Formats: sequence, structure tokens, C-alpha cells
Amino acid sequence: MTPHELQQLLYQEIPITQAMAIEVQKLSKSDIEIKAPFEANKNIHQTAFAGSIYTTATLAGWSLLTNHLKQEGLKGSVVLGKAQINYLQPIKGDIIARTKLPSDEQLTLFEKQLNSKGRSKLKLLVEVIENEQVKASFEGAYAVL
Amino acid sequence: MTPHELQQLLYQEIPITQAMAIEVQKLSKSDIEIKAPFEANKNIHQTAFAGSIYTTATLAGWSLLTNHLKQEGLKGSVVLGKAQINYLQPIKGDIIARTKLPSDEQLTLFEKQLNSKGRSKLKLLVEVIENEQVKASFEGAYAVL
Repeated sequence: MTPHELQQLLYQEIPITQAMAIEVQKLSKSDIEIKAPFEANKNIHQTAFAGSIYTTATLAGWSLLTNHLKQEGLKGSVVLGKAQINYLQPIKGDIIARTKLPSDEQLTLFEKQLNSKGRSKLKLLVEVIENEQVKASFEGAYAVL
Repeated sequence: MTPHELQQLLYQEIPITQAMAIEVQKLSKSDIEIKAPFEANKNIHQTAFAGSIYTTATLAGWSLLTNHLKQEGLKGSVVLGKAQINYLQPIKGDIIARTKLPSDEQLTLFEKQLNSKGRSKLKLLVEVIENEQVKASFEGAYAVL
């Protein structure tokens, strides 16, 4: 997918992403960056809303893994099984979530299990960045069914 | 606060709650129930979106603790420090998040620390319910500053 195609997919299939004004900034085979602009995602403290920070991180992980399946010709739906997030510092502007695929070794194990059992799991770490500092750290355990 | 006053506060101060069509169903001194209707919060699988499930749970905890501070005449801003969530089963309709205040013993410790140090912490467990079954389980570590 191109960044534009992914953004259209999110807008069509997950309507709240439109209200969040989600923008797919980068999408390559192994990396993704997704932005949620400040105004639509602010809270009562005039910082970025914890719910929007989490959601932007979730979308980055889901999108990168969904794109990976398409690229590799693998079938399956990506769902989030569990997740945790640490809010390290307040974010005073846009929410920028970045993640990348894990090591080739982990991907090989993931695909082997998907091919043999028809389902598999992958953990992704997503960093939420402001001014090149990590402001929140998300870990999501995604399942492919 | 009444449920209506809380809903107005959320809509004014956290704009994404309007797009989610968040409804405060119940608010008492010790209990809260918040709903996010299905249509605004669905995903590509035609189930409730993981990001909206988390956000609704987050709002329930934040709101109950903010209401508790007001009721007790305590000063402070409530922020979420870290959280984890387990998605136990897909939700096929509206998202309903429920939580209640912890034991009097825990509340007493929380208030003692707030009064002596000007800041304190409280963990809240939020259950996300469908047809009286727990479909997701959220634990948020809130800080009051």
C-alpha cells in the first residue's frame, strides 16, 4: 500500500480515524509513521489526550502488520490481543507514532506459525515522539487470524 | 457532577469524545458507566475498535476520579500515567465501560498522600461489558497532581 491508500483504508473502515484527522506520514516495507494533529486530539490540560495517543500507536502497529501481510501475500486479519502503554511526558503538540517490523528471525518464526497453524502472534513496540523525544511507549500483542 | 454535567465537560474539554458520541449513562459517588455507541466506534472487522474500547475505559476512570476529587473538595488534576488492557472477546455492539472507586482503605491512603505531598496515585480497574459479560479488562494508574 502507499501511505495514501492506507489512509483511505483507515478512513473507510475505522470511522473514528477521520474525526482524529489521522495522517499516514510514512509507510515502507518495514517502517511506519502516523500523525494525529493536536487540535482534534487535545485534552482538558491542553496536551495530547491519553486515549488519542494510545489509539494512534495502536493504528501504527496494526497498519504496519497489515501492510506486511499484503506485501508477503499472506492471508489473515490483524487484531490487537492486549497492550500496555507508558506515558512518559506530556505531549504539547501533534501525536507522532512510529514503529518498525521486528528482526528477520522473529518474522520468520511468525510466518512459520501462520503457515502451519493458520494463526500467529507478533509483539510490536511503538514509540510516540515529540521533538525527537520519546513521550510515550506502547507495546501491543497483535494476533493474526 | 450529574451525568449530564460530566458529559458536557468531556465534550467541551476533550473534543474527540464528541466524535465518539460518548454518553455518560451513570455517575454516582462511587460508580460510573460510560457508553460509546457502535457506529462511531466500529472497525474493519465490524466489531468495536480497540482504540475506542481503550479510550472509553480511560474516560471512565478519569471521570470517576475527577468527580471524587470534586465531591471531597480536593484539589488536583487527574492524568493517566500508564495502563494495560486485555481484549478478551470481540464486542459486536456498543462499548460499555464500568468502574467503581476502590476500598475505603485505599482511598484513605490516596487522600493522605495527596494532602501531605500535593500529589498522589490511584489504580482503577475498568471492565468493558457486553451482554453482562466482561469483553475487555483495563487497568489504569492515574496520578493526581
